[in-house]
Amino acid sequence: MIDYDKFLSRSGMRMQGSAIRRMGTVLAQKRDIISFAPGYPAPEMFPWHELQEIARELLTGRDGAVLQYGPTRGHPPLLDTIARLMGHREIATTRERLLVTTGSQQGLDLVARVLLDPGDVVLVELPTYTGAITAFRNVQAELAGIRQERDGIDLQDLERTCDMLAGTGRRVRFLYLVPNFQNPTGLLIGLEKRQQLLEWAARRDLLIVEDDPYRELYFEDAATEADVRPLRADDREGRVIYLSSFSKTLAPGFRVAWIEAPAPLAAKLEMAKQAEDLLTGSLDQRIVHEAYRRGVLQRQIPLLRRHYQHKRDVMAEALRRHLGGEVHWPPPKGGFFLWVTLPRGLNAEKMTRRAIHHGVIYVAGEAFFADGSGQNLIRLSFSAPPPDDIRAGVERLAAAIAEERAAASQA
Amino acid sequence: MIDYDKFLSRSGMRMQGSAIRRMGTVLAQKRDIISFAPGYPAPEMFPWHELQEIARELLTGRDGAVLQYGPTRGHPPLLDTIARLMGHREIATTRERLLVTTGSQQGLDLVARVLLDPGDVVLVELPTYTGAITAFRNVQAELAGIRQERDGIDLQDLERTCDMLAGTGRRVRFLYLVPNFQNPTGLLIGLEKRQQLLEWAARRDLLIVEDDPYRELYFEDAATEADVRPLRADDREGRVIYLSSFSKTLAPGFRVAWIEAPAPLAAKLEMAKQAEDLLTGSLDQRIVHEAYRRGVLQRQIPLLRRHYQHKRDVMAEALRRHLGGEVHWPPPKGGFFLWVTLPRGLNAEKMTRRAIHHGVIYVAGEAFFADGSGQNLIRLSFSAPPPDDIRAGVERLAAAIAEERAAASQA
Repeated sequence: MIDYDKFLSRSGMRMQGSAIRRMGTVLAQKRDIISFAPGYPAPEMFPWHELQEIARELLTGRDGAVLQYGPTRGHPPLLDTIARLMGHREIATTRERLLVTTGSQQGLDLVARVLLDPGDVVLVELPTYTGAITAFRNVQAELAGIRQERDGIDLQDLERTCDMLAGTGRRVRFLYLVPNFQNPTGLLIGLEKRQQLLEWAARRDLLIVEDDPYRELYFEDAATEADVRPLRADDREGRVIYLSSFSKTLAPGFRVAWIEAPAPLAAKLEMAKQAEDLLTGSLDQRIVHEAYRRGVLQRQIPLLRRHYQHKRDVMAEALRRHLGGEVHWPPPKGGFFLWVTLPRGLNAEKMTRRAIHHGVIYVAGEAFFADGSGQNLIRLSFSAPPPDDIRAGVERLAAAIAEERAAASQA
Repeated sequence: MIDYDKFLSRSGMRMQGSAIRRMGTVLAQKRDIISFAPGYPAPEMFPWHELQEIARELLTGRDGAVLQYGPTRGHPPLLDTIARLMGHREIATTRERLLVTTGSQQGLDLVARVLLDPGDVVLVELPTYTGAITAFRNVQAELAGIRQERDGIDLQDLERTCDMLAGTGRRVRFLYLVPNFQNPTGLLIGLEKRQQLLEWAARRDLLIVEDDPYRELYFEDAATEADVRPLRADDREGRVIYLSSFSKTLAPGFRVAWIEAPAPLAAKLEMAKQAEDLLTGSLDQRIVHEAYRRGVLQRQIPLLRRHYQHKRDVMAEALRRHLGGEVHWPPPKGGFFLWVTLPRGLNAEKMTRRAIHHGVIYVAGEAFFADGSGQNLIRLSFSAPPPDDIRAGVERLAAAIAEERAAASQA
């Protein structure tokens, strides 16, 4: 038997599966389980009929390019569509600054490869999106975590961390942010703070990577269009690399997202993508483009806002009913998640087995913390399960927590 | 104006666009051009009607998973389909050894990331597939080129190169091979040589990465099923990582391919893919699976063999008519390419501008040589253009060559 470890690269040796994807595997193996783990959009909301009609029209064979190889940058009409869509977000852009990516995960990976050498430092929020943590760690970057406040990242902690790092001679490359309905906390960075972050980047001569998949999905009772203005909209200097996606607003199975970046960086990101997968799916890109051209995507968004707001209410109410006073969470103003602090002393990772036994899963908070903290937190995703499942799942979670507390007090 | 160069990683600094993709851009910009550059399959051969019907049935909304996130490994029924298909290639495998990839390009990239550290050496054929060269170089590996003979890679040169490298203390990781109708040469590695390569790998304690996208597309007047037996079929020790794809047999726009590897390596490749794009398109994977389940793919293959064999004949005949005696190429037994040696003294890269002026493009041979040689060679792809375009394109090429020779003799 060959020992394959000796063939692995340093990066290959360190690679680990993501906590979220591991939960996906649990889900696939056990049927009667309610999943609050992955941030899946609600499939009953996908515009099936329209997408079916679009696919039918694209697959007549009239245009051979629909199933052919194509440009790495992306299907040109889709690039123009994305530029238009960016205009609605107050960002003026052109094809030279855009790159279609195979999901935003690829965007993060490309950014990592083009900007990070082993040992370089990335500043990230504490907590932050696990997929970003993995992409940055896979190129052997180091992560420095910055605390968050009610209105997002703590600027004082950011300055303090930068000063501290400056003394070590380590090279800080960029700050990674999810300003709108952050994954996992659901927090929104305040508008004034966004300006201050741009000033900070100029002063420190650093870049900001702004990851914005959830911005359309604000809750109308808690936020407005003005609240989700991207940092990129006010970036006069060219310090912001902006990522967004059609995964949460249309459907994730298409794997169509994009990066917007200063042209010289967009060109490098394109080269990195060439070697990574040549191009994003040709049919997928065309379906997404057509969904925008026909107004399907635009009609979806208000429906989705109401849908997820309702599910948020269902989950919050169920938590109050079954766990009132025992757990708490910052009220999210958009997105897919409640970020729940467990009763003191409970370890979320350790409790996972008991939760699965009760037929419910979540993601333990630790996975989102670059500094290894967060043992007492769980991310609950309310986006995919139907309301009755949300209620039943929370009841199961309450039972698991009660058992875990009882076991802890006996120990 | 910010100087973005200072933000680039070492890998980002070195990245360059691929020659093949650059030709794709030329093609997109100029309408009246006949392209022998990229290895595009013939779109008129895609089974449009069947694919349209499959997409219609998948997009009814009955199964929400069709457009949802899914397991990184791949859609489980597709994994089983691939295992069955591998069985027809005399390779016994299981889900634990398989990973669906976003095109074979992603497979090459994942292999590079999991196995290669900066400075590690990969052995490659001279010439070899440019996409592999780029993927290996992007992780800062060094490439050592091995000469080819009529029946593929030169084993003596392979041994010599290994001995030479052993003296330098550099770590050789694997040999990358395209044994069937190699891109760009169209060569086929002889069966006895395949056995010798496996023995070589065992003796040297190295891995072999076997890239096999063209194996179904042999020409029935020149090769048989027995000739394309994969090295992996006789790999008892677990030294072969095998890549193949649906891009050439069904359609490349789906971006569905796979890696088969020893289970511990497959697990690492899966982790690398998690961070790279989470999953390959959900709809795409299901369309490909259905195309196999319904026998669409199987019915395609004999049609494709005849189609490409005919186009090979058309191109070879046109070359003989317009350039007889001036150029030569090894007769390909399958695949998409003629690998043409230009008249002595002509530089293919330099001639490109003249060729574009005449309305024809190819890929200059240099891009395929890890050692920077091959200035006198061009790769002509006959797969995509209709026969009349092949004839007209060769005529244009002949005109460009005549002009280039005249200019050279005057200089």
